[in-house]
Amino acid sequence: MDKFLLLESDASLTLYETVKELPILDYHCHLDPKEIYEDRPFENLGAMWLHHDHYKWRLMRAAGVLEDLVTGSGGDQAKFDAYAGAIALAAGNPLYHWTAMELSQFFGIEQPLNADTAPSIWQRANEIIRAQALSPRKLIERSRVQYIATTDDPADSLVYHDKIRQDASFACQVVPSFRTDRVLSIQAEGYADYIAKLSAAADIDIKNLSTLKDALCRRMDFFVDRGCRFSDIGIPAFPEGVLNNQAAGAVFERALAGKYIGEDEYRGFLGHMYVFLGGEYKKREMVMQLHMAVRRNTNTRLYERVGADAGGDCMDDSIPMGSLLLLLDAMAKEDSLPKSILYALNPAMIPALCAAAGSFSDVRCGAAWWFCDHKRGIREVLETVAEIGHLAAFPGMLTDSRSFLSYARHDYFRRIVCSLLAGWVEKGEFDKGAAPLLARKLCYDNTKELIGGGEL
Amino acid sequence: MDKFLLLESDASLTLYETVKELPILDYHCHLDPKEIYEDRPFENLGAMWLHHDHYKWRLMRAAGVLEDLVTGSGGDQAKFDAYAGAIALAAGNPLYHWTAMELSQFFGIEQPLNADTAPSIWQRANEIIRAQALSPRKLIERSRVQYIATTDDPADSLVYHDKIRQDASFACQVVPSFRTDRVLSIQAEGYADYIAKLSAAADIDIKNLSTLKDALCRRMDFFVDRGCRFSDIGIPAFPEGVLNNQAAGAVFERALAGKYIGEDEYRGFLGHMYVFLGGEYKKREMVMQLHMAVRRNTNTRLYERVGADAGGDCMDDSIPMGSLLLLLDAMAKEDSLPKSILYALNPAMIPALCAAAGSFSDVRCGAAWWFCDHKRGIREVLETVAEIGHLAAFPGMLTDSRSFLSYARHDYFRRIVCSLLAGWVEKGEFDKGAAPLLARKLCYDNTKELIGGGEL
Amino acid sequence: MDKFLLLESDASLTLYETVKELPILDYHCHLDPKEIYEDRPFENLGAMWLHHDHYKWRLMRAAGVLEDLVTGSGGDQAKFDAYAGAIALAAGNPLYHWTAMELSQFFGIEQPLNADTAPSIWQRANEIIRAQALSPRKLIERSRVQYIATTDDPADSLVYHDKIRQDASFACQVVPSFRTDRVLSIQAEGYADYIAKLSAAADIDIKNLSTLKDALCRRMDFFVDRGCRFSDIGIPAFPEGVLNNQAAGAVFERALAGKYIGEDEYRGFLGHMYVFLGGEYKKREMVMQLHMAVRRNTNTRLYERVGADAGGDCMDDSIPMGSLLLLLDAMAKEDSLPKSILYALNPAMIPALCAAAGSFSDVRCGAAWWFCDHKRGIREVLETVAEIGHLAAFPGMLTDSRSFLSYARHDYFRRIVCSLLAGWVEKGEFDKGAAPLLARKLCYDNTKELIGGGEL
Repeated sequence: MDKFLLLESDASLTLYETVKELPILDYHCHLDPKEIYEDRPFENLGAMWLHHDHYKWRLMRAAGVLEDLVTGSGGDQAKFDAYAGAIALAAGNPLYHWTAMELSQFFGIEQPLNADTAPSIWQRANEIIRAQALSPRKLIERSRVQYIATTDDPADSLVYHDKIRQDASFACQVVPSFRTDRVLSIQAEGYADYIAKLSAAADIDIKNLSTLKDALCRRMDFFVDRGCRFSDIGIPAFPEGVLNNQAAGAVFERALAGKYIGEDEYRGFLGHMYVFLGGEYKKREMVMQLHMAVRRNTNTRLYERVGADAGGDCMDDSIPMGSLLLLLDAMAKEDSLPKSILYALNPAMIPALCAAAGSFSDVRCGAAWWFCDHKRGIREVLETVAEIGHLAAFPGMLTDSRSFLSYARHDYFRRIVCSLLAGWVEKGEFDKGAAPLLARKLCYDNTKELIGGGEL
Repeated sequence: MDKFLLLESDASLTLYETVKELPILDYHCHLDPKEIYEDRPFENLGAMWLHHDHYKWRLMRAAGVLEDLVTGSGGDQAKFDAYAGAIALAAGNPLYHWTAMELSQFFGIEQPLNADTAPSIWQRANEIIRAQALSPRKLIERSRVQYIATTDDPADSLVYHDKIRQDASFACQVVPSFRTDRVLSIQAEGYADYIAKLSAAADIDIKNLSTLKDALCRRMDFFVDRGCRFSDIGIPAFPEGVLNNQAAGAVFERALAGKYIGEDEYRGFLGHMYVFLGGEYKKREMVMQLHMAVRRNTNTRLYERVGADAGGDCMDDSIPMGSLLLLLDAMAKEDSLPKSILYALNPAMIPALCAAAGSFSDVRCGAAWWFCDHKRGIREVLETVAEIGHLAAFPGMLTDSRSFLSYARHDYFRRIVCSLLAGWVEKGEFDKGAAPLLARKLCYDNTKELIGGGEL
Repeated sequence: MDKFLLLESDASLTLYETVKELPILDYHCHLDPKEIYEDRPFENLGAMWLHHDHYKWRLMRAAGVLEDLVTGSGGDQAKFDAYAGAIALAAGNPLYHWTAMELSQFFGIEQPLNADTAPSIWQRANEIIRAQALSPRKLIERSRVQYIATTDDPADSLVYHDKIRQDASFACQVVPSFRTDRVLSIQAEGYADYIAKLSAAADIDIKNLSTLKDALCRRMDFFVDRGCRFSDIGIPAFPEGVLNNQAAGAVFERALAGKYIGEDEYRGFLGHMYVFLGGEYKKREMVMQLHMAVRRNTNTRLYERVGADAGGDCMDDSIPMGSLLLLLDAMAKEDSLPKSILYALNPAMIPALCAAAGSFSDVRCGAAWWFCDHKRGIREVLETVAEIGHLAAFPGMLTDSRSFLSYARHDYFRRIVCSLLAGWVEKGEFDKGAAPLLARKLCYDNTKELIGGGEL
């Protein structure tokens, strides 16, 4: 891999060298703590790359690969070969660069992956995987990851987080995040069953809104005791208005009883709960993350065949800025607006999101997310934050990933940051002396501050 | 014209040289087959350029040219002079480059067109037009056009397509496309008259939804027999939900009886028909094109004076991604989703469109369209497809044009493609060895595959 | 400050030199004519920069500065120091460049402002402010401002405009603009009181819609007598439909009586009034400005503490293109569409806005506004206008500012224009000979024409 990859000049490279070795703080991802704890060596490069990664699956499908070789019964090598064929011409796709970076970083392979090189790369990578018994923790340690915040349900026992913490041989901090999707999805089938599970986890019999809130607070404390600093929400629906306590309580009780909940009630209930949760997060100095404008499982046949997170999710366009602003204002009015990070999957929303964030203290626009997590998308978010907000207050990069190799994305991000800043310096648009400090804030320091980094 | 136009480096030029001579497959345009058949020589450059081209008309109006010299009673030379005045300062407009490219390609004229050069260019171009008896077919042949898909109504006799095909002296394939706007516009005045025409064409008495579908299938077969591979729809309204057969039938019968059709019924009927048509297209291996987010004839006075396609059409912003995704899913669930190409006139929708396409096999985001068909717009679509989808699966360029000179747009596109790819290669972001193959796919091969190119 | 700032090549600089000394015509701003008339010298750089400027306030808040040092009880120097700390790392923010340009232009200070340089810059700038008794008029004259259009309420007496005009020692023309926000805000508290004020100003007893219109016409004439050429509207709500005279009259009378006005009535009333006002503007050759997609005072606590224009305004996304197009068409149908300039605060709307403008004679997309008024935003608007409209018809730059130093924004704009045009020339995409004329049109001539510049 070219050392200048994504770096547009010597000055970019010089700046990059000041941040490239910084540890990684990955404050939002979807890694499974059980897999981290168990630390099973990977079987081969196909398993390592393709077992969970819906980014790669979509690319393969777009290249015409049949489902059998994507998520189906095809073997790991056949799937790997199919991926090699798909990536070879995927110019401009972030996977093209991540693939090259991962091959270089973990296996010292500098050739482009394609149909011709696939057999030798398969062989060489697998030799290394076997010889070094590459496993989740080894990938994490080699990537200099200092901190991982997983994404967890409030009813989760966090048993694997506990086990990891108790294992002194693993230096990386692995902490849970408080993801409330299931708690709030009162229209979902099996909602009462979920609440029963939450009741058990909290040891509180949830019968109404008041006991739901008690249970959530108890689970929050449990999470915070285990290092949790972040909450998250990723449901497609967005609050519209804020029901009062009584009305929200009535909706909740009907949901618990398995009754039909209309869209308006649902969204008003969401509004009530967001404000409540915001206040509780604020008390505990937790950071609230809102992941917006996603539409999930849009292809029913794919969903029925493969399940959720299969590559059938899309950008949505249905979150009005008015609703977002009313929600933030409702929280701010009650002093219940915690430190918050807003993410939108649809890039057309980013400027308005930055403007909204700028009207409230401690609200920030987050890093480019998912479909936007590529060179132009990352750069676009950084520039928009710089123009409409304040770049030095940007909360930093995260992977949002399900893959243990994806720390290359932090390197990818750092290269883009340094290219952007050095470009401004070279054009006389930014003070050369200030650039290293700003680069460091964007690549490490701001995130460290966000996670209350004294303890690292 | 500078040979480097739109090419940013020697590497771009080298790559461009590998594709510049490839034939043109123009799989979506609005050329009139009658004009192609009759092949009347043009009278002068004004007639050639300005008689149908609402792109130029809008530019002239924006430059302050009065309607008489745009679409009115002014003579061809006066209109040409007005255009020359308007184009001279139209920096950044694609017409600026197309004009220069067309003058260079067809007339060997390398001067910029402006008020000073207008008289000599008028004279020289007209001499060539007369001397060479330049006509539609000559322009088509000189542009190396191998394939033209026109846009045709299901009730059309396709008589001119037949005549063209029977004329062995003309090598270019000219095939019809199946454009269902009028079939689906059940709110339009004169709908029953149109259906009578369709009945006659299909030789089926259309009395209800079932006979409508029979007639459409028969016309589809008729079109496919004449080489049709593409369907198209360009109405502003978009399906919302999918009425069942009975409800859709009731709406259709009321429309046929001249009754008032409400917006909701109309959109539910559209949903039903889109799913039906999708299934029929799939059976026949036809490609479905959806042209979305257009608002037509927005200036009533202009419409009353000049008619449709006068330059009064606009970008719309009213197609929710949720509706599009529901439609695609409804088709996919019934195995009725054909190969599809999605186009949106509003560039703010492109990222979401690419994400939507990526959730369904064989759905693609199409080339930059109409108001977006310029250097930045084309590049933006290519980059977005690359980032969110797979660039190598891009279906290729088309003109969407009403002008016989507009094949320069394919050259324009090829230059932009090569500049983009070569730029990536130069920055180390894409494999140099893979670039020529990818360029060729984008400029020719993918379209050839799309049209079932074995026969060419 | 680097003479090449924002200029990307020698050719850009050469082109820039042809426009940099042109006078400034600032045809839309929020300066207070009273302050211009009274012309009180500034106390210090903190007062000059920070007393009204919500752009700076937002940046400071984003950098974590507490409200006391933003708009609160902190002293001018403490606030200045806080700003210095905030701006030092604000790479990519237009304030970063404006700050450097203003320090260079007015004080000959070439160092970047930061915590280290703040004390010496504070001292040196204040010495110059005192020594030269820098005042509003001095800043205006030094900036070569020839024309200022302020933003004024129809009920305003314009007494300070009269006084300024009568003062022969001040060469700059300062004229009012007709801003109808309060007239149209029939849902606002105290609406009847406002109408009483307007009655008094017009010397017409406003009792119904007819007398409202009479009063508005009389005030328009009064404004036009004082050089007014521009109207403006900046309310968040946008017309939906157009009520007829009778219905609009009924709504107005209910508003005057303090009755509740529903959202639909309000928007229908707006439609009626926009069409009426458009016709009256047209008769008087006034230019209609529509500032769209803003959401004001979104942070209630901030609003309650600091008031309006405190930095709590945001981009909105709720103006459908369909509504805008219907409104423009309603005006055009009645020959009531004046020269118009459309501005949208949300950049995702700009392409559609340009397309809409292009369907109507004399409607233009305006300069990048507020949150979009930065290097990329300005360039984006210019390129979009070039692509979809006609760049040479662009109405030119304005400050929209509340600060007397902000004329640097015109210099900022001119540099961006020249960089863009010279870049095209260098790539062979635009005629070198035409560039200076186009640059001059964009930087001065078009605005002069817009304001009926014969009189300057």
